Amino acid sequence: MHDRILYSYWRSSAAYRVRIALNLKGLEYQQRSVHLVNNGGEQHSTEFKRLNPNQLVPVFVDNGMVLNQSLAIIDYLDETYSDALLVPKSGEARYLIKAMAQDIAVDIHPLNNLRVLQYLSNELHVDEDDKSAWYKHWIATGFEALEQRISVTRGQYCVGNEISLVDVCLMPQMYNAQRFGVDLTSYPNLHDVTTSLGKVRAFIQAAPEQQPDAM
Amino acid sequence: MHDRILYSYWRSSAAYRVRIALNLKGLEYQQRSVHLVNNGGEQHSTEFKRLNPNQLVPVFVDNGMVLNQSLAIIDYLDETYSDALLVPKSGEARYLIKAMAQDIAVDIHPLNNLRVLQYLSNELHVDEDDKSAWYKHWIATGFEALEQRISVTRGQYCVGNEISLVDVCLMPQMYNAQRFGVDLTSYPNLHDVTTSLGKVRAFIQAAPEQQPDAM
Repeated sequence: MHDRILYSYWRSSAAYRVRIALNLKGLEYQQRSVHLVNNGGEQHSTEFKRLNPNQLVPVFVDNGMVLNQSLAIIDYLDETYSDALLVPKSGEARYLIKAMAQDIAVDIHPLNNLRVLQYLSNELHVDEDDKSAWYKHWIATGFEALEQRISVTRGQYCVGNEISLVDVCLMPQMYNAQRFGVDLTSYPNLHDVTTSLGKVRAFIQAAPEQQPDAM
Repeated sequence: MHDRILYSYWRSSAAYRVRIALNLKGLEYQQRSVHLVNNGGEQHSTEFKRLNPNQLVPVFVDNGMVLNQSLAIIDYLDETYSDALLVPKSGEARYLIKAMAQDIAVDIHPLNNLRVLQYLSNELHVDEDDKSAWYKHWIATGFEALEQRISVTRGQYCVGNEISLVDVCLMPQMYNAQRFGVDLTSYPNLHDVTTSLGKVRAFIQAAPEQQPDAM
């Protein structure tokens, strides 16, 4: 039995990215669910904090290495298992792809993470309407820029006709945007690319609803 | 004259990271100031949006490549100019160092960015005390985890006795924490390491107050 373990939660965007990367590379893994809501948030348990003191998923374990941060995990996978390369090994595109992925993973996602929405409600007493506006504001800010970039770089996928790290980050962010009722008609290129990605088995199998801990 | 250009703002943590990396590698560059507050924020100008539709600094231009996202820029610098390597070229440490850097650059910094603090004030009418509590909460959450990790990995610097990407991300975050009055006595390892870094010329010269646009 393979010993790769992904500590994951079905609705975590960051864990969803890693699931897509693992599937694209055809790597088997065990999935261990860390329920971010039940039991006061299982990511805060003593056991999980030992794996990741940041108390966030995903955490990936491979060959005894315990690694957090989805982008670091995907770099590890991409540089260790070279099938279905997600970032070119050299050249300008290597860095432009990383930057576009970070436009999503650094500048959109952390602002709309569960712990942030919880802080807005519990500590700042922000009501549901204002919380929804917050959510949509950061999506819109990021997606407007990304739509513009992708209109230049896209083919079938975000950058030409090969799946890249940008696609791996885009799909979970689009899933979240749809879930929170963001109007996506202003982003025709993002919409088209996501439609293409939605037909790829690695993406289908990584979807939140397909996970063993989905409810 | 060299043609490397860094679009920067003296107090931007992300630009500060890139300045440190450029200095560590001994690379000359022109600095162009993008004032994030004056004139309604120069990052929103038509001219700057052409460089980065995300309207965020830094942007780095080298050999005709226009690249945003500090971590992508630093990857480019580190893989192009191999003096003073910030991330080992292979091995477990490569990914652990990236993850620790992202613990700062992904999970702390974006939540306390200027545009986020502005949104809290202008849109959610959060008062100064609550805004300060927000700021300190995300620093404390991230620093508690980082302090724990670094207590194991540190030597003179965050990981052993060689300066790494973690140090490049830590220094600007500590600068911000001090500026916003965060009590740092709970983080003796972070404090020690930062004291060491504060003696390194590349870090001194990258400091906000040393920049031409500092006020």
